[in-house]
Amino acid sequence: MLKVGLLGAGRIAGVHATAITAHPGSTLVAVSDYLPANAEKIAAQYGCAARSTEEIIADPSIDAVLIATSTDTHSGLIEAATSAGKVVLCEKPVDLSLERACACLAHADKTGKPVMIGFNRRFDPNFGALKKALEAGEIGKAELLSITSFDPAPPPVAYVKVSGGIFRDMMIHDFDMANFLMGAAPVTVAATASSIVDPEIGSVGDFDTAVVSMTYADGRIAVIKNSRRAVYGYDQRVELLGSRGLLQAQNMLENTVVKSTADGVTGAKPTYFFLERYMPAYAAEWAAFVEAVKGGGSMPVTLRDGVDALAMAEAATASAKSGGAPVRVDSV
Amino acid sequence: MLKVGLLGAGRIAGVHATAITAHPGSTLVAVSDYLPANAEKIAAQYGCAARSTEEIIADPSIDAVLIATSTDTHSGLIEAATSAGKVVLCEKPVDLSLERACACLAHADKTGKPVMIGFNRRFDPNFGALKKALEAGEIGKAELLSITSFDPAPPPVAYVKVSGGIFRDMMIHDFDMANFLMGAAPVTVAATASSIVDPEIGSVGDFDTAVVSMTYADGRIAVIKNSRRAVYGYDQRVELLGSRGLLQAQNMLENTVVKSTADGVTGAKPTYFFLERYMPAYAAEWAAFVEAVKGGGSMPVTLRDGVDALAMAEAATASAKSGGAPVRVDSV
Amino acid sequence: MLKVGLLGAGRIAGVHATAITAHPGSTLVAVSDYLPANAEKIAAQYGCAARSTEEIIADPSIDAVLIATSTDTHSGLIEAATSAGKVVLCEKPVDLSLERACACLAHADKTGKPVMIGFNRRFDPNFGALKKALEAGEIGKAELLSITSFDPAPPPVAYVKVSGGIFRDMMIHDFDMANFLMGAAPVTVAATASSIVDPEIGSVGDFDTAVVSMTYADGRIAVIKNSRRAVYGYDQRVELLGSRGLLQAQNMLENTVVKSTADGVTGAKPTYFFLERYMPAYAAEWAAFVEAVKGGGSMPVTLRDGVDALAMAEAATASAKSGGAPVRVDSV
Amino acid sequence: MLKVGLLGAGRIAGVHATAITAHPGSTLVAVSDYLPANAEKIAAQYGCAARSTEEIIADPSIDAVLIATSTDTHSGLIEAATSAGKVVLCEKPVDLSLERACACLAHADKTGKPVMIGFNRRFDPNFGALKKALEAGEIGKAELLSITSFDPAPPPVAYVKVSGGIFRDMMIHDFDMANFLMGAAPVTVAATASSIVDPEIGSVGDFDTAVVSMTYADGRIAVIKNSRRAVYGYDQRVELLGSRGLLQAQNMLENTVVKSTADGVTGAKPTYFFLERYMPAYAAEWAAFVEAVKGGGSMPVTLRDGVDALAMAEAATASAKSGGAPVRVDSV
Repeated sequence: MLKVGLLGAGRIAGVHATAITAHPGSTLVAVSDYLPANAEKIAAQYGCAARSTEEIIADPSIDAVLIATSTDTHSGLIEAATSAGKVVLCEKPVDLSLERACACLAHADKTGKPVMIGFNRRFDPNFGALKKALEAGEIGKAELLSITSFDPAPPPVAYVKVSGGIFRDMMIHDFDMANFLMGAAPVTVAATASSIVDPEIGSVGDFDTAVVSMTYADGRIAVIKNSRRAVYGYDQRVELLGSRGLLQAQNMLENTVVKSTADGVTGAKPTYFFLERYMPAYAAEWAAFVEAVKGGGSMPVTLRDGVDALAMAEAATASAKSGGAPVRVDSV
Repeated sequence: MLKVGLLGAGRIAGVHATAITAHPGSTLVAVSDYLPANAEKIAAQYGCAARSTEEIIADPSIDAVLIATSTDTHSGLIEAATSAGKVVLCEKPVDLSLERACACLAHADKTGKPVMIGFNRRFDPNFGALKKALEAGEIGKAELLSITSFDPAPPPVAYVKVSGGIFRDMMIHDFDMANFLMGAAPVTVAATASSIVDPEIGSVGDFDTAVVSMTYADGRIAVIKNSRRAVYGYDQRVELLGSRGLLQAQNMLENTVVKSTADGVTGAKPTYFFLERYMPAYAAEWAAFVEAVKGGGSMPVTLRDGVDALAMAEAATASAKSGGAPVRVDSV
Repeated sequence: MLKVGLLGAGRIAGVHATAITAHPGSTLVAVSDYLPANAEKIAAQYGCAARSTEEIIADPSIDAVLIATSTDTHSGLIEAATSAGKVVLCEKPVDLSLERACACLAHADKTGKPVMIGFNRRFDPNFGALKKALEAGEIGKAELLSITSFDPAPPPVAYVKVSGGIFRDMMIHDFDMANFLMGAAPVTVAATASSIVDPEIGSVGDFDTAVVSMTYADGRIAVIKNSRRAVYGYDQRVELLGSRGLLQAQNMLENTVVKSTADGVTGAKPTYFFLERYMPAYAAEWAAFVEAVKGGGSMPVTLRDGVDALAMAEAATASAKSGGAPVRVDSV
Repeated sequence: MLKVGLLGAGRIAGVHATAITAHPGSTLVAVSDYLPANAEKIAAQYGCAARSTEEIIADPSIDAVLIATSTDTHSGLIEAATSAGKVVLCEKPVDLSLERACACLAHADKTGKPVMIGFNRRFDPNFGALKKALEAGEIGKAELLSITSFDPAPPPVAYVKVSGGIFRDMMIHDFDMANFLMGAAPVTVAATASSIVDPEIGSVGDFDTAVVSMTYADGRIAVIKNSRRAVYGYDQRVELLGSRGLLQAQNMLENTVVKSTADGVTGAKPTYFFLERYMPAYAAEWAAFVEAVKGGGSMPVTLRDGVDALAMAEAATASAKSGGAPVRVDSV
C-alpha cells in the first residue's frame, strides 16, 4: 500500500485526494496547504492528517508526495521531496522558467528518485485510444497532426499577468500532447497569435488566440490551435493524418440526447471544462503512477517531458513576439 | 449521516457499496450474504462489518438497508426491513409473482416506511435529460415512444429457466422506462416474440427477441424492442416523437475516436454492458435515495412502480404466449 | 433508344420526365393528362408531343409507358398498355382494391409484358447500401427489422378520405421496403393505431400514427412505425439487427453544417419531403427500368410486389380496426 | 435564353455542358477543343455545334463563353472573349503568373465585360450555409478560421512539375474560400510545407503537405491544411470560431448507412473526389452566373478574386521556400 502525502489543498488537490483514496493500492495519509484551514478540510473529508509541508517531506513513512501547489513552488518541492527519498507526482508545469526547470531536472536525476509530471491528458481514454490505434499501425505512418484546444472562457487578466503567457500556461498541454503522439520533439516552432478575444489580454503582453506550426526532422508537420474562449464549452480535439488514414479524437458530450424540431437537430454541448472532461483521466493518471512506482520502472510522463514542453512554450513565445518567424526549439 | 446495511455481496452489491461510501451523506456499516465469505470480502474492502441479514435488520442503529440479494428473497426482505423500521432501496424486480409483489406492497404500505425500487435507468443522465426536455415542452405533446434495448449476449439457458422470462427479467426495465417517460401506465400490451437468437431458449418456453406495442388511454402509442444479442454491445436507446419534435437518447460510446481509412469511417462501440453504461446512474440513484430519505418526502421510484412494471410484464407474457393479441394491463 | 410515353402531367410526372430525358438510353416522345393544359406544359418544357392517353397507348412506335396518373386509373392503364404491347412503369400503389389489383396482375401476366411498380425507395442509395451489406453477410442472419417512416405534415382531410387509409396510402411503401429487405412476405400483421395527431383524421375513419408488428415463418420479426407529422422533416430510417451486427440507414440532411453555441450543438434537419430525399432514387429507378427492358430480364420491382404490399396493407387495416389482434396476410 | 459557347471539351467541360443544358435560362450552342474529336463528342451528346475557338469568340450571336481549357490559355482567352463583347465564366486559376493575371484583369476591366472565375466551392451548399449563418450573426464575430482540404491521392509527378506548385494548384481554392468567408484578404501568409507523402514531389521542388497561417488587419487568424493524400477520400472541411460559437462544415458521405459489429461502428467514407463532392456546386455556380448576367449586376466571384487568391499562393510559395517566415501579401 503506497503511503501518500498531498501538498496543496485547492480544487485540483481534492480531485487527486479522491483518486488516491479510491485506488486499492494507495492511501492518503497527510495533506498540507499554505492555508492550514484548507488542509484541515481535506483531512476531515478523506480521513487523513493535516500537517506542514516540511513534516510531510521529512516523514520517512511516507512513500510518495503529490504536488498540487502553485506553479512557483513546483521546482523547489520536487527537489526537496526527491532529496528526502520520495517518489513524486507533480502537477504541470514544472516551472515558468526553463532554466529553473532544467536545474530541477538535474537535481532530481542526481537523487535517482522518479518524478512524474501531471500531463493528465495523456490518460484521457480518447487520446489514449488514438495513440494506441496509431501504434498499432492503423493509419500507417503519421504525417500531419492537428490539435484543437479551446477553453470555455478566458481567465481574469490578473491571472493572465502571472501565468507565463498562453504558451506556457495553456498550450503547454498541447505541446506535451504533440510530443506524446509524435514520439519526438519538433525542430522548429512558429507561432501566429492575436488578442482578438479580449484586447486587455493583449495590453498585458499576452495573446488569447494562437496557431502554432511545428516541423519535425523527418518531414512531419503539426499544428496547434488555441483560443481562450469557446462559448459552447471545452473544445479538446485531436486529429492525425497518416499514410493510410485519419484518426480523430472528438469531444465528449454532456449527454447523448438529440432533439429534432422545426429549428434543426440539436445535441448536447461538450463537457464544460477540464474537471468534467478529464475526471476519468485523473484517476487513470494516478493508477499509472502507482503502477510505475510498484513496478520500479520508469514514469509514464517524466520530468524531462515537462522540460521539453516548456522549451517548446519558450520557443513559441519568442516566435509570436517576433511576428511569427520559426524558432528552433534547441535554440531556447 | 445515513447508516446503511447492505444485504447481498455479489457484483451489483459491490457497485452499491462504492456509491454508499462515496456519498458524503451515507456510510456503509454492515454487509451480509448467504455465503459469509463474500460478505467478509466486501467488509474488508469498504471497512464495515460482515454480519447476518437478521442482525442487520434487527440493529436499531441502522437507518436503511439496500437489498441486492437474489430476486426470490426481495419481497420477504422488504417486509422484514420495513417492519423493523428501515427505509429500503431494493434491486428490481420486486418479485417474479405479481400476487406476491402486491402482498409485499400492502405490507410495506402498512408500515409506512418508504421503499425505493432500483430502476437505475431512470437516473441515467441521458434518459434524465430526455425526460427533462419533454417536461419543459421542447417537443410539445408526446405521441409515439420507442425503446430499443438489446443485451450484448444471451444469458445461459440455466438462468433463462428461472428468470421469469424475457418480459419479467429484461423488458421490465423498459416497461418502467415507458412509465417514467409517459407518466402513465398503458391500457393494453401486445407482444410479438421469437427465439430466433437461440432456439434452446425457445425450448425452455422463453423468447430472446420481442416487440411489444402498448396503447394509452389518450391515444399515445409506445413500442419496445428487445433482443438478447447485439454483438456490438449494450444497445440502449429511446426516442419519443411529439407534436413539435423528436427526442432521442443515443448510446454512450467507449471513446470518441473515429478512424477514416480506405475501408470506411469507424468509431467506437457502445459501452459493453450495464455496469459500464449505467455506472453514473447507480451513483445518481443512491444520491436520489439519500436525498429522498433526508427530505422525508416520497421516493423517486416507488414499490408501486415496481408492481406496475411487473403487471405489464405479466400482460406481455400472456400476449406473447397467446400469439400476440393485445392484453389489458388491468386484467392481470 | 427507348421511346417513352408519359401518362399524367402532375408534379411527380415532372420528376419522371427529367429522369427519362437525362438518361442516355431513353427519350420522352409524348405526354398526356386529363387536363390537356398540363400535358402541353410538360411537352413544351421537355420537347415532346402532348397527346391523348389513348393515342399514346395505341402508338406502335412507343415502347414504354410511365403511368403517373391518379391511383384509381392505374389498374386499367396497366391492362390497356400491356395489351397494347408496351412495357410499363407504374407509380404505386397498383390499386386501392386488392381484388382489382389481383385481376390486373392476372391480365398483365397473360400479355407477358413486364410491369414495374414504382417503389422508388428501393433505389435510394442508402437503403440500397444497407441491402447490399446484408446480402454480403456483413451482419450475419437478419433477425429484427425496424422501419421508421414519418411524413413532415399530414395531408388535408379531404385527401385522407379518398386515400385508402394510412396503411394503403403511406405504410405501403414501408411494407414493400420490408419485403425488399427481408426477401419474404410476413405471415402475420398486427397493427396498433391512433389518430392523436389530428382527431379529424380519426373522425373520417383513418389513423395518423401507427405501429405494425410482423412475424415471419422463420421467426424473424419486423416493426414499422408511421406518423403523419414529424415537424422536423421527412424521417426515413431503417435498422436491421442481425446475428453479427446492426445496420442502420439514417436520414439525409439538408447540409453538413454544425453550429456550437451556448445553447447546444445544432445541425441541419433531414431533407424535407420525398422529392428532396428521393430525387436520386427516381433517377436510379428509371435507370433500373431501362436496364431491365434492354436486358430482357425480369423487372427489379414487379406487379406481384405491388400486390403483395397491398395485401399487407389490407391485413394491417383489418388488424387496426379490430383493436390490434394479428391478422394472417394470406387471409385477406 | 443565354447562348453559350464552351471552350474546351475535357472532363470538367462535360460537367459544365450538363449544367448549361439543364438550366432553363441558358443553351449550349457550340463547343471547341484543341483536339477536334473531343469537341465533336460533346457536340453530339448535347446537341450543339463543334467549332473552332476563334469562330465561337467571333460569333456575335453567342452571348457568353465558358473557358474550360488548360490553365496556360486562360488569360489570353479571357482577353479575346471580353474584347469580343462576351461575358465569361473561366475555370480557376486565372493564370500561374501573377503578373500575367494582373494584365488580364486590366484588359478585362477596360472592356467592361464581366468575368466570373470558377471557384466552385463558394457554391457548395455546405459552405454556403456556413457563410449564411456567419452573416446572420449566429456565432458573433469571426476570430479563427480553419480549412482542411485533402485530396484522395497525389497527381502524377509529371503533372506536379507543370502545376505551379501545391499553393497555386491546390491551395488556391482554399485561399479563395478564406477570402469568401473572411470578407477580406490577409496581411501575411506563413507556410510550413513538406514532401512527406512522396519524396519525388519534393525532388521536383514542390510540396505535398502544407500548413499555412494567415493574419488579418483586425487580429483574426486563419489556418489552412493541405495534403495530397487522404486515402479515405476527398476531405473538405471548414470550421470557424467566433465570439459566440463555432461553425463547422463537415464532409458529405457516400451514404448514411452505419454498421455496428463486434469490430466497431462503421459509416461510409466521404464522397471520393471533387466531381462527386462538388457536383451540386457546379450547377449552382452556373445558375449564379446566369442570374448575374441577366441581372446586369456584378459577378458573384470576380476576376479580381482570382488575382487575389493567386497573390496569396505566390506569398505562400515564397514563405515555404524560405523556411516558413511570414510574407506580406502586398509584397508579391
